[in-house]
Amino acid sequence: MKIKVAVILSGCGYQDGSEINESVLTLLALAKSGADVQCVAPSITQRHVVDHRTGEPTEDEDRNVLIESSRIARGEICSLDDVRATDFDAFIYVGGFGAAKNLSSFAFDGPDYDIDPGVNDLIQTAHAKGIPQGFMCIAPVLAACALGKQAVLLTIGNDSSIAEALQVKGANHQDCPVDNIIVDQGNRVVSTPAYLLAQSITEAEAGINRLVAAILQLVTQK
Amino acid sequence: MKIKVAVILSGCGYQDGSEINESVLTLLALAKSGADVQCVAPSITQRHVVDHRTGEPTEDEDRNVLIESSRIARGEICSLDDVRATDFDAFIYVGGFGAAKNLSSFAFDGPDYDIDPGVNDLIQTAHAKGIPQGFMCIAPVLAACALGKQAVLLTIGNDSSIAEALQVKGANHQDCPVDNIIVDQGNRVVSTPAYLLAQSITEAEAGINRLVAAILQLVTQK
Repeated sequence: MKIKVAVILSGCGYQDGSEINESVLTLLALAKSGADVQCVAPSITQRHVVDHRTGEPTEDEDRNVLIESSRIARGEICSLDDVRATDFDAFIYVGGFGAAKNLSSFAFDGPDYDIDPGVNDLIQTAHAKGIPQGFMCIAPVLAACALGKQAVLLTIGNDSSIAEALQVKGANHQDCPVDNIIVDQGNRVVSTPAYLLAQSITEAEAGINRLVAAILQLVTQK
Repeated sequence: MKIKVAVILSGCGYQDGSEINESVLTLLALAKSGADVQCVAPSITQRHVVDHRTGEPTEDEDRNVLIESSRIARGEICSLDDVRATDFDAFIYVGGFGAAKNLSSFAFDGPDYDIDPGVNDLIQTAHAKGIPQGFMCIAPVLAACALGKQAVLLTIGNDSSIAEALQVKGANHQDCPVDNIIVDQGNRVVSTPAYLLAQSITEAEAGINRLVAAILQLVTQK
């Protein structure tokens, strides 16, 4: 039977949603491994919409995270509300500021951030069931908040200020180069810096491929 | 010296803009080859905005092709108006309905379609200068219109009705499987079906990798 992996998106474009390269590289690595993939996103309004040329938020524009994420998923997406942790063998949370703006408030609130209750429940339930979970780029802020009590081990590359914020939540942090991963065997959590450090799409690919491989290996080590 | 390749985008999302997987796979293949890449798009209003879950256009929403394309380009994009054919060693036109809705009117007008004057000029000038050009998915409609007088040889996969439309413009068509390419050596044009036929991202990748390799080979065969 195929391994079923949910890829959690947070919009379409790294400044207000999912990092597009990270998303596609994850889907590519999963497809090459023969996994059965389902993209998932919450049906919530984006915190804002950013012009990716200028970095400036646009005015009076509302976009929905689920609808924008469906661009990356080529329409094949389901709402976070319709997902149960036990429907999947593994979860992968892609980066991009959407994870810090839509799925959590980290980009606005720093160490005092909170995360979307649906995302929080999904991460905690998956953890309780022993389902492997991957977090790339800024997405480890989600794991730190949901699994801080479990002292989850994560990487956010080498950004000491973000690392401190994770530690405030109870998580542990370990520096990691762009082409590598940090595996928390006990919590069954894998993380990689991706575009927190990547200077090119090939650098991002190296770490993402390792994360996907490690997640699939954890699935087989029940 | 690095080979300089321009990747022409038409928005962000296959139903109203660039096919995202095709775009990222093209950028990935070019990065792996060591090419210097510049994303380019025209600053024009999208013909419409489509909800990729339902396939339905949304109402009263305007998006700009250049701004949306900049999501794929991570902000590093330049306007078609600022590009001269001689600035680059090769051009690659990604697919997605954006090529048939924003860069041309093919999706609305069928065989009577026209193409954006700026795109037309760029393709014709690049052709006149012997600069290799790649077209994937539905983007060969652009080449057919601009280079019909040169009887350019293209593939649109195995879609006989689109193939007829290309032939009305003067182009020649050849069926091609998803993992292969059609090379018109004389006109220095390469095409591949990509998501016109691809059932998965790995199928799309196979043809796109071949197209990129063929384009780079043509660059070295001056």
